[in-house]
Amino acid sequence: MPANTVNPDLQREREKATFKTQEFTYWWVGGKNKYEAKKKLEKMFLDDPELQDDLPISYMSPKELYEHSVRKAVIIANKLRELRAEGEDDVDTYTALFGGALGSALIKEGNPMMLHFVMFVPTIMGQGTTEQQIEWLSKAWDCNILGTYAQTELGHGTFLRGLETRADYDASTQEFVINTPTISAYKWWPGGMGHTSNYAIVVAQLYTKGEFRGLAPFIVQLRDLETHMPMPGIDVGDIGPKIGMKSVNNGYLGLKNVRVPLNNMLMKNQQVLPDGTYVAPKNSVLTYGTMMFVRCALIRDLSQTLAKASTIAMRYSAVRRQSPIDPNEPEPQIIEHTTQQLKVFPQIAKAIVFKITGECIWNMFNNVTGELEQGNMDRLPEMHALSCCLKAITSADSAAAVEVCRLSCGGHGYMDCSNFPTIYGMTTAVCTYEGENTVMLLQTSRYLVKVYAQALNGETLVPTVHYIQDYVKNKQFGKFDCSLEQIVRAFQFVAANKVRIAYERMEKHRKQGREPETAANLVGIELTQAADLHGRAFLAQSAYTELNQLIPKVSPELGAVFKTILELYLIDSCLIRIGDFLRFINLTDSDISKLELRLADCLKRLRPNAVALVDSFDVHDRVLDSALGAADGRVYERIFESAKKNPMNQEPVNKTFHQYLKPFMRANL
Amino acid sequence: MPANTVNPDLQREREKATFKTQEFTYWWVGGKNKYEAKKKLEKMFLDDPELQDDLPISYMSPKELYEHSVRKAVIIANKLRELRAEGEDDVDTYTALFGGALGSALIKEGNPMMLHFVMFVPTIMGQGTTEQQIEWLSKAWDCNILGTYAQTELGHGTFLRGLETRADYDASTQEFVINTPTISAYKWWPGGMGHTSNYAIVVAQLYTKGEFRGLAPFIVQLRDLETHMPMPGIDVGDIGPKIGMKSVNNGYLGLKNVRVPLNNMLMKNQQVLPDGTYVAPKNSVLTYGTMMFVRCALIRDLSQTLAKASTIAMRYSAVRRQSPIDPNEPEPQIIEHTTQQLKVFPQIAKAIVFKITGECIWNMFNNVTGELEQGNMDRLPEMHALSCCLKAITSADSAAAVEVCRLSCGGHGYMDCSNFPTIYGMTTAVCTYEGENTVMLLQTSRYLVKVYAQALNGETLVPTVHYIQDYVKNKQFGKFDCSLEQIVRAFQFVAANKVRIAYERMEKHRKQGREPETAANLVGIELTQAADLHGRAFLAQSAYTELNQLIPKVSPELGAVFKTILELYLIDSCLIRIGDFLRFINLTDSDISKLELRLADCLKRLRPNAVALVDSFDVHDRVLDSALGAADGRVYERIFESAKKNPMNQEPVNKTFHQYLKPFMRANL
Repeated sequence: MPANTVNPDLQREREKATFKTQEFTYWWVGGKNKYEAKKKLEKMFLDDPELQDDLPISYMSPKELYEHSVRKAVIIANKLRELRAEGEDDVDTYTALFGGALGSALIKEGNPMMLHFVMFVPTIMGQGTTEQQIEWLSKAWDCNILGTYAQTELGHGTFLRGLETRADYDASTQEFVINTPTISAYKWWPGGMGHTSNYAIVVAQLYTKGEFRGLAPFIVQLRDLETHMPMPGIDVGDIGPKIGMKSVNNGYLGLKNVRVPLNNMLMKNQQVLPDGTYVAPKNSVLTYGTMMFVRCALIRDLSQTLAKASTIAMRYSAVRRQSPIDPNEPEPQIIEHTTQQLKVFPQIAKAIVFKITGECIWNMFNNVTGELEQGNMDRLPEMHALSCCLKAITSADSAAAVEVCRLSCGGHGYMDCSNFPTIYGMTTAVCTYEGENTVMLLQTSRYLVKVYAQALNGETLVPTVHYIQDYVKNKQFGKFDCSLEQIVRAFQFVAANKVRIAYERMEKHRKQGREPETAANLVGIELTQAADLHGRAFLAQSAYTELNQLIPKVSPELGAVFKTILELYLIDSCLIRIGDFLRFINLTDSDISKLELRLADCLKRLRPNAVALVDSFDVHDRVLDSALGAADGRVYERIFESAKKNPMNQEPVNKTFHQYLKPFMRANL
Repeated sequence: MPANTVNPDLQREREKATFKTQEFTYWWVGGKNKYEAKKKLEKMFLDDPELQDDLPISYMSPKELYEHSVRKAVIIANKLRELRAEGEDDVDTYTALFGGALGSALIKEGNPMMLHFVMFVPTIMGQGTTEQQIEWLSKAWDCNILGTYAQTELGHGTFLRGLETRADYDASTQEFVINTPTISAYKWWPGGMGHTSNYAIVVAQLYTKGEFRGLAPFIVQLRDLETHMPMPGIDVGDIGPKIGMKSVNNGYLGLKNVRVPLNNMLMKNQQVLPDGTYVAPKNSVLTYGTMMFVRCALIRDLSQTLAKASTIAMRYSAVRRQSPIDPNEPEPQIIEHTTQQLKVFPQIAKAIVFKITGECIWNMFNNVTGELEQGNMDRLPEMHALSCCLKAITSADSAAAVEVCRLSCGGHGYMDCSNFPTIYGMTTAVCTYEGENTVMLLQTSRYLVKVYAQALNGETLVPTVHYIQDYVKNKQFGKFDCSLEQIVRAFQFVAANKVRIAYERMEKHRKQGREPETAANLVGIELTQAADLHGRAFLAQSAYTELNQLIPKVSPELGAVFKTILELYLIDSCLIRIGDFLRFINLTDSDISKLELRLADCLKRLRPNAVALVDSFDVHDRVLDSALGAADGRVYERIFESAKKNPMNQEPVNKTFHQYLKPFMRANL
């Protein structure tokens, strides 16, 4: 197929669509203005000739990739400087470049300067005093220093109290002496710390006047500003290759009697006075804010990831033809196979539902933050519980969805040129960072058993757990009529039952004399299941509520598509865990058959609009970066062009033939 | 922790074990003799100083990795030559080096000569006439030529009839003219084809006397024996980077009027006479044999993969300490967390069950092959159906299990030095190669609906589907008593129900006038579910039968461990798809609670033996190749040593500081 033409199968799919992609796209990106800003930013960065890759990065060694990425990171940061000088660097710009799709198109395995912008600067803003902000922020914004955030250690991640790095205050010199007492105390993972940053915020266990005070953040200089050599007492380097994030330059850091001045401890929340007197933070909940913020943002990012993965799988499925259905017809587009539809369509639906839920919780987060600033912390535990389980569910589901999409592309999905390997690497990482998923679910469940006890006591519960109160009042579900509304209510009913089981089994252990923590560990499986269902009930409910509010506001054609998406998402989610439904609700075999046939019907209804839907996600070809998923559908040509770029193919004969193979093949002649 | 010591937590675990690891190991590897042969082979290859890697391969570029791997492949092949000269190259040696664990320790991303030994030579043996074998085999065995097997194309994989490469017989010169008519007809994926092989067996659509004759295999010379330059008309190269198998040198191949002599078509099954007369194969089912052979072998390999992954996760879980359970105690080994046990233990059980099922089906395969050679093809369809669904289930489950193990190791599992990324890459590939999993399930289901109709007609069914006959006779399950025997029977009962649903829905579509193929596509989801349950019922049943036969033959201590393994596997498998059970069998909420509590009890019982169990898998440290999983448990030290080898860390300052970072950081000063 010649360049500059579109695959005719794909073209035909686009002509079949019953709705206007532009209407969907405007909604998806947040309106016409945001759409235009997105296009402008894409043009500015993606069309820059300096930011093109001649050679696919998968042909590079890790070291070459790092060097390549620093070069590009500096070009990007310079462009950001220009935007900033013109006052045009709004939040959306940073989000797009460091959390979002655009950034992944520019440096696909992660920007080594990312943590400077998303952690170093924000932490100084959030935890520094006004004087400290004056001292550090302009240098940091101007990138005269480049920082990172060093918290996780080789031996401790999610459990922060276990961190071993230690800062002892020396009142005689008004300095902190920071040390890495053991190998497991080495800071491990901070992005950019290997060879890029010259500063870090180091989180350490604080001791003053010989007493332990808890964790505190310190600004530590890692490298000389002139020579970039590690400072005395600093052992710093790159931790080595990983599944993804290959150019983030994740680093290790050991500190040996590194002295930093008193004023380098960020003191907005807690203080050390010159004589070593420790002033404890007034409110320990304030730090919840950043974590919740990041987790809420992750859900929105994951929706973009699903949009990307499902776009690739969907377009490939419309171009690839294989395995006859009707033996008298030519091989069909593989999307005609029902089993293929069941692989791809639910992932498209999930992208939309995660976006909706992400915005929903984002708005809740903003309300709670607003209330927090007024000193009202009532909704904080609820919000924390919800953000934890949703982070766990959406990241696990997204990683699984990426693999379903990849496997739906057969062998070609396995090639780096599909871009699935990178997408998976970036996505599965979310299951672990910002709070490991199982720990997240356990945090949520702790809240749920607490509110269950409150409900038993007749207390009134806050909105997102109100269903538990309803359940405690009336433990009967009644007749299941297979309506979408009932499926949402059934999710809540099942979640409430799972909370009850966890609560009751914990209580039983308590009555046998076990400590609450031991009891909680013994019912760990039940607790994670309760938290999982709580999150899924929220997803079902927010999808139902938000889409039903949205549908009357859009064209009937788009409304019909949203209706199918909602139905597909809810029925698919329900059938996947039908065991939970059957256990607690009186569903008959005929109810299940009905749901299965409705699922098949959803797939059929979505079929004509499937390509148009992924087109509407408006994922730029450079963001997709996939031979399988480009908008023109020139799948085989692009795979072939990618292989032809292989440095190994630039020489007809590899040197190992003469070095090793020929002598070996001749030896027995 | 100093070198040459064992982590004390791991040591304590070993002392706790209630059974003798050696007894298990002998059983696992197939007896004392096999154990000693294994050790000898490991010593011969793994202790060879020429076969050590100074630099972890993940630091190399793909081209460097290829060159590194060819060098090692030649050393390995030379050692094989020595063994062969002494008559010591038995089947186990080839299996270990090219299908098994040992091979993955030597060239962890795949041997570029593998297809020569596992496909090129066997295909000549299986499909060549005696004369052809005489002509080609000694050259091939001596490695004077290196071959590969070129079947899959860019546009077609599993559906072989769709292949486009074309061979036209020219009687005037007694040659075949082979062509790649389109870009999608390029051969794609054959291992070693990029730059290693100089010969290939090319599968092409045969035309003689202007008529189409079906697929045939041709021996084609790809490269000049002296110069290794591609032969005229040959366009050959490496397809580029992939998730795994990074050093297999998967290649592409285009042919333009490439002429090969008449005698280069492998003619054991079908012949072309010099004048172009075509003699069709007598029996098309013979080719099933190889495919079944490979699929049965894969199941055994996957059991080894699970042994490897679960060993890493288990040892790490015994060394890593984090997150207190009892707030008054130090942080526990993470394996104390019930949620962690549920991640790791079932994967250990799966490794054992897959081994047992793999051997079970291997024996069946040998029986069927024996019967085939007697001209009896009765059990062929049954065996084909079983090997297809088991290949799909065990590969999908193994890939998922590897990821569960990896994620159970938190962030450290994400690093290449854990070896999980490579293990996953190698494992997930099995979901696609040797028959894509969904296609495999559909093949099985085609058989199942056929035998269901036979059962309805009162015909007697063969052993592995006998349960369908029982079901048709009596559709009541009766009371479920939660015994293991009942769980096995319940799996069969559920499978029979799923087959019935697929059959009935297909029949409904047929009665509405649809063609069988169209009807099958419309119930594709139901068909794959039926095949999935059929395979799972076989796994449950073979595990139950074989382990119950084994237990009286081993020591009571080991017998107790096997009992727990069986119980854990069955209850876990049952709870994961409890929805299917609840749908068709009258299980109460209290039955489910009972199963859940028994699962928790299994975890508790397995706990003291968990490290000893993975020790018993006897996976060599070089095979594990994991900082997290080595037998000495020096986890943090090994991670650290691996990072220190990073070529980036050999220079304190990367050149990009002076090139890019410093000018950028200074620009705004």
